[in-house]
Amino acid sequence: MPYVNIKITKEGNITKEQKAALIKGATDLLVNVLHKNPASTVVVIDEVDLDNWGLGGDPILVAREKNKKK
Amino acid sequence: MPYVNIKITKEGNITKEQKAALIKGATDLLVNVLHKNPASTVVVIDEVDLDNWGLGGDPILVAREKNKKK
Amino acid sequence: MPYVNIKITKEGNITKEQKAALIKGATDLLVNVLHKNPASTVVVIDEVDLDNWGLGGDPILVAREKNKKK
Amino acid sequence: MPYVNIKITKEGNITKEQKAALIKGATDLLVNVLHKNPASTVVVIDEVDLDNWGLGGDPILVAREKNKKK
Amino acid sequence: MPYVNIKITKEGNITKEQKAALIKGATDLLVNVLHKNPASTVVVIDEVDLDNWGLGGDPILVAREKNKKK
Amino acid sequence: MPYVNIKITKEGNITKEQKAALIKGATDLLVNVLHKNPASTVVVIDEVDLDNWGLGGDPILVAREKNKKK
Repeated sequence: MPYVNIKITKEGNITKEQKAALIKGATDLLVNVLHKNPASTVVVIDEVDLDNWGLGGDPILVAREKNKKK
Repeated sequence: MPYVNIKITKEGNITKEQKAALIKGATDLLVNVLHKNPASTVVVIDEVDLDNWGLGGDPILVAREKNKKK
Repeated sequence: MPYVNIKITKEGNITKEQKAALIKGATDLLVNVLHKNPASTVVVIDEVDLDNWGLGGDPILVAREKNKKK
Repeated sequence: MPYVNIKITKEGNITKEQKAALIKGATDLLVNVLHKNPASTVVVIDEVDLDNWGLGGDPILVAREKNKKK
Repeated sequence: MPYVNIKITKEGNITKEQKAALIKGATDLLVNVLHKNPASTVVVIDEVDLDNWGLGGDPILVAREKNKKK
Repeated sequence: MPYVNIKITKEGNITKEQKAALIKGATDLLVNVLHKNPASTVVVIDEVDLDNWGLGGDPILVAREKNKKK
């Protein structure tokens, strides 16, 4: 019955198997920690364009560049 | 003034008219049940790739297959 | 399998029956328009404090007052 | 940098330690599967009142009762 | 540490610079008003298809037309 | 018509005026950057319990402590 939403950047490198692993891992987490019923546990993965994701006041690619220089 | 977010899988078969029906239906629901002002009621439909939707620990297509075999 | 999130203001006047009507209405909408399986349709209602809801740049109560004067 | 939102029902029985376990588990999942940077991974847990959560067209408590009788 | 989600319609006219300005503006707002740490402030912009956005019970394009005639 | 959701921790120190400033600032941002109509711009502020917010795999208070020691 829990609902898990995972938002990540769309970097063209996430495979079908990795998405399945995220779904299984998130569901197992709710089962193991809270004994929730997996049958009605919904997991939704949102992939967000890089330009649409900001961290520290910058678009993520800019933020990553700044981080490298630290 | 209410905000309704409807998340569904992207299966390439939802028409413009069906989306309009979802928007009208969700708005009418808030008007009829809670007497909300339709003018500022926002409805957003998110269509999610099939690989990005999980149920019961599996990607939805796998979950549907398992369900058929029950 | 759809997920519907309804965000409304918390005004202390919404009954258990009205919440049940929102849940039933939202689920029926997905069944009637998109023939979705109600069994795995999740509806979550978020009630938001009045001070935490803004419309037109103002907190909702201020916005409503301004609207009355129009 | 990922953002994970976990929505669960508020049943008054979730401990601080279990919430910490959800936060750690969700973060580890993104690290293990997608090699994400844990330092900027945000996890938010929303606890939703039972009357505000619907499954199969019913409030969750009613849905659970119906499920028991199946 | 705050998380800001901005949902807007996808109208093919939003530039990379405008997205960066939204990210910077939203982060600065949290810094200026609540003295939050910008380094861990996440901003995510969701662009929604026009058919998927409803206002006043209509798809947004229909709503805009109706508004013009008022 | 845009929808902005601001999620912050509930630390019992945010005033009504600060919430109004967040609402105004977020709306002005959409007006200034994207020339959006403020009248139908919705801003929702979610305040999340400290135990329910995680960063870097820890509950936020633990994460802050670790950060101080760096």
